[in-house]
Amino acid sequence: SSGSTPITATLFPGDGIGPEIAVAVKKVFSTAEVPIEWEEHYVGETVDNRTNSFLTLESLESVRRNKVGLKGPMATPIGKGHRSLNLTLRKELGLYANVRPCYSLPGYKTRYDGVNLVTIRENTEGEYSGLEHQVVKGVVESIKIITRQASLRVAEYAFHYAVANGRKRVSAIHKANIMRKTDGLFLKCCREVAEKYPEIAYEEVIIDNCCMMLVKNPTLFDVLVMPNLYGDIISDLCAGLIGGLGLTPSCNIGEDGIALAEAVHGSAPDIAGKNLANPTALLLSGVSMLRHLEMNDKADQIHKAVLNTISEGKFLTGDLGGNASTTDFTKAVCNHL
Amino acid sequence: SSGSTPITATLFPGDGIGPEIAVAVKKVFSTAEVPIEWEEHYVGETVDNRTNSFLTLESLESVRRNKVGLKGPMATPIGKGHRSLNLTLRKELGLYANVRPCYSLPGYKTRYDGVNLVTIRENTEGEYSGLEHQVVKGVVESIKIITRQASLRVAEYAFHYAVANGRKRVSAIHKANIMRKTDGLFLKCCREVAEKYPEIAYEEVIIDNCCMMLVKNPTLFDVLVMPNLYGDIISDLCAGLIGGLGLTPSCNIGEDGIALAEAVHGSAPDIAGKNLANPTALLLSGVSMLRHLEMNDKADQIHKAVLNTISEGKFLTGDLGGNASTTDFTKAVCNHL
Ligand SMILES: CC(C)[C@H](C(=O)O)[C@@H](O)C(=O)O
Ligand SMILES: CC(C)[C@H](C(=O)O)[C@@H](O)C(=O)O
Repeated sequence: SSGSTPITATLFPGDGIGPEIAVAVKKVFSTAEVPIEWEEHYVGETVDNRTNSFLTLESLESVRRNKVGLKGPMATPIGKGHRSLNLTLRKELGLYANVRPCYSLPGYKTRYDGVNLVTIRENTEGEYSGLEHQVVKGVVESIKIITRQASLRVAEYAFHYAVANGRKRVSAIHKANIMRKTDGLFLKCCREVAEKYPEIAYEEVIIDNCCMMLVKNPTLFDVLVMPNLYGDIISDLCAGLIGGLGLTPSCNIGEDGIALAEAVHGSAPDIAGKNLANPTALLLSGVSMLRHLEMNDKADQIHKAVLNTISEGKFLTGDLGGNASTTDFTKAVCNHL
Repeated sequence: SSGSTPITATLFPGDGIGPEIAVAVKKVFSTAEVPIEWEEHYVGETVDNRTNSFLTLESLESVRRNKVGLKGPMATPIGKGHRSLNLTLRKELGLYANVRPCYSLPGYKTRYDGVNLVTIRENTEGEYSGLEHQVVKGVVESIKIITRQASLRVAEYAFHYAVANGRKRVSAIHKANIMRKTDGLFLKCCREVAEKYPEIAYEEVIIDNCCMMLVKNPTLFDVLVMPNLYGDIISDLCAGLIGGLGLTPSCNIGEDGIALAEAVHGSAPDIAGKNLANPTALLLSGVSMLRHLEMNDKADQIHKAVLNTISEGKFLTGDLGGNASTTDFTKAVCNHL
């Protein structure tokens, strides 16, 4: 063992394939002797009336106390009147930035090579305000809210991230030619922050053009920062470029230094419990969590082991075109450590 | 000549490279003996105070009278307090649906093969309402409006288009899991219309997932119908899949049977007047206009000539990797007629 005092991190295995891929992460982390102790909280069984969701107050308190956590997929039962678990987490924990590194995996071929970008999404406001109403019969409106505070906060995070990760450029994505006031304020805040980081190039790209550029030549981008809905759209588009949500890590940055990493793919109930799921997204999200904790050596080690397992191509799960089980894949990662 | 009474169509050559590519269209159409007489209106020189834009009342009246027109790129001077020309046209002519066929061009290689889809965008409301204000200092809001009337109208058009063009499926693109009321109403209208077209399959796809699917496998889609901003984003994304806006036609459908086809690329001032521009998007938009007029033979003939010119590869303009001039390319199209 490394000898350092272990850090306690919350683990939400989640629903469906969540528990299996969480087992994979625990196995890889313990084999790599990462000094982390997991505090596990199962969600998805009963509704906690105090949170009006499947999240218990205790599970939220665990992240607040530990300040760091890892989350598997959570299925929100539709139409039962409970808030989406993802939205509840974002709100309760003030998770203001969603960070998704997106890079081509050597050995996993898609139409794109050399993708290496990071999307940073404002995660608390914009089109997700929840403010909607019927004006008259047949006329409804939704309200998009942009605030100076949240825009500055996510812009600051984007530039901070760029510097900390040796990135060279931040692109603010917007539609300020149409939404002059809301996206205009977002851009104004990005510009203010950009001025404090003369070493990082700054540009502004209209979202429609950005999407066209991404499918034509994604290597044009480095760090992208944007309001909530654009981030939702563009982060999934980017995941598609390199193979899908099963391969992309994600990490949410919250108030008081909280970081909650998560696999953003679905809970895949059809293959749950069958030892068929690919743990890559949760493993790489765990790597994001380690980088947030500045455990960069361990992060690099696990990152490389996952990438080598995929490029070696011997123990690939079904989604990657192989027929290895979750445990086979996990063992291969451990052997590459 | 074909002997039929010619139809009068409005032509807005537009700014920058607009006039050159409009000459190309006129040349190809007359060589193909299309029974159309052009009524040309130049825009972009002086502001007409009656419209508060570079569009004159006469030019708008021309489209209203002829009910059919073709438009080149128009540059909106930024920050001069005039409305965008595109937005003015949409508003003044009630252009409620923007239709963009998007298909792989044989001979022009991109990362994608066999793309063959059509995006149909609601063009009058949604996030483009123009309703925005500051709530308090540092807090701004934009209002997205969805109406039953406009949603039904564009959904009707999408299903009508699917039937008329031998398409099999309509996908409604939305984010109703977040914007339950606005996108929810849009979906409700699409479902109502879908029931009247049992021969056309109908599905609903969340926009983030749609973008991921489009970059992974665009052949999964046929006709896509969606609110304004999603249409703006997805139509550009799709154009990127097959090579960019220089290759994609577009047609706006308006009230009273108006159809205004347009090249949606920019006015490219850097190469304007140099006989270097690629007229493909305007030519194919002209083809869309002919189909709207049910001149399908002429449409097929010109369409094939453009595609053959590109796949032959001898007279390609610079953007396509060749060094032919606009007039060389145009002559080649005429020779293929
Ligand atoms: C499930 C849904 C509410 C969520 C979102 O729209 O934010 C998802 O798409 C995501 O990106 O995390
Ligand atoms: C120029 C701009 C106002 C326009 C839009 O956003 O609709 C353009 O992107 C388009 O798609 O026609």
